[in-house]
Amino acid sequence: MTVAYDGTDFHGWQVQPQLPTIQGVLQEILSGVEGFPVLVEGSGRTDAGVHAVGQVAAFDLRNPIPCPNLQKAVNRLLPSSIRVTETLEADLKFHPRHDAKSKTYEYRVFRGPVCSPFLRRYVMFHPYPIDWTRFAAAARCFVGEHDFSAFAAADERDATGFSKVRTVFSAQVVEDGDLVLFQISGSGFLKHMVRNLVGTMIEAGRGNLTVDQVREVLASRDRRRAGPTAAPEGLFLMRVDY
Amino acid sequence: MTVAYDGTDFHGWQVQPQLPTIQGVLQEILSGVEGFPVLVEGSGRTDAGVHAVGQVAAFDLRNPIPCPNLQKAVNRLLPSSIRVTETLEADLKFHPRHDAKSKTYEYRVFRGPVCSPFLRRYVMFHPYPIDWTRFAAAARCFVGEHDFSAFAAADERDATGFSKVRTVFSAQVVEDGDLVLFQISGSGFLKHMVRNLVGTMIEAGRGNLTVDQVREVLASRDRRRAGPTAAPEGLFLMRVDY
Repeated sequence: MTVAYDGTDFHGWQVQPQLPTIQGVLQEILSGVEGFPVLVEGSGRTDAGVHAVGQVAAFDLRNPIPCPNLQKAVNRLLPSSIRVTETLEADLKFHPRHDAKSKTYEYRVFRGPVCSPFLRRYVMFHPYPIDWTRFAAAARCFVGEHDFSAFAAADERDATGFSKVRTVFSAQVVEDGDLVLFQISGSGFLKHMVRNLVGTMIEAGRGNLTVDQVREVLASRDRRRAGPTAAPEGLFLMRVDY
Repeated sequence: MTVAYDGTDFHGWQVQPQLPTIQGVLQEILSGVEGFPVLVEGSGRTDAGVHAVGQVAAFDLRNPIPCPNLQKAVNRLLPSSIRVTETLEADLKFHPRHDAKSKTYEYRVFRGPVCSPFLRRYVMFHPYPIDWTRFAAAARCFVGEHDFSAFAAADERDATGFSKVRTVFSAQVVEDGDLVLFQISGSGFLKHMVRNLVGTMIEAGRGNLTVDQVREVLASRDRRRAGPTAAPEGLFLMRVDY
């Protein structure tokens, strides 16, 4: 299933006891359809407050319900903040995380002086002076195969024996009026990685880091040298390719 | 002040005890700035769940704070669901409702099969078959000076000695992919009027009323002959002209 969600009111993708999560809601509804507990696997976790346009979720059902009927039934039971946009039968061996070849995220920044109430849930509000050309130049430093330890979440950084090497296929910044969109595709992303890249690009745009220094931060593999973690509400998981 | 708001989480414009309302929040914040109770008048009420891009609010302050500073201070104190987008000094005699020459509303319908989670708060979801040409043709019946009693809220209909005559300057329907936008400007609008017009246009589009019958409903001044009140979340007060 391809799943879109407004993450504002959820504690992220992953099931947590007593808290509303995307995986938890999907498992509850699909278990109801199946009559037995159903495990729903995603292409990866998204953090609390992060959105998705094209998360991919997979699960096994014995119920022979055709895909279009299943999608209609599930959308009828889901809250309107989660929508299934496509449903396909997959090979039994398909795994949405292990088989992903590329993931694409978009981070949205609103740079106008007053943020529209209709965008506030879906952008980082940044009305301060910034050199957006340098912000975009910093983005290009991340393209290629790198050890992204400098941009990993603190808890993940400390895990040993876990490779932080990822390949970024493309990273670009599109300016569209008061919106600035950072679009990044890669083989995979560490926890908080996109938000930490954005926090560092903001530091570059504000003049606190040169583009060369951004390259040095990346090479240092030292999380303390990178910028802060950007707010979750600007981040969208756009698509997963297999 | 020109004020934009996401009405989803408010009980409409007008102050109500114990309930969050736009007028109530503005009055609370402006009274705090002034140090005395401030009465905030709007160009008109909006119902619970209805949004505004350009509501106009006026009030008297003795505090000599310049408009740009006042706007910044108020936006800092307001929740992000309400934003002041413009602040101007007005004549002491200015009244945002009495002096309004024209108001423009937009009603947004989403006609695709699956409603995006990012639009759900801001559209009426209508995935059912409908003749949108007839929906638009019905809209044109409303242009001109008419007694709109057939489209007034039930509680207002029963008030005697209160004219239901209003002039609609323009009414058009714009189709934009999965979105259908009904835009209407007029001298003023009765309570629920735009939503009742939309409910009747939907009936026409579904084949339950011909365009001639829509004209007859208008002429009848009988609320029982018009369609149901369309959902509040699709409605936006776009602008008020003076």
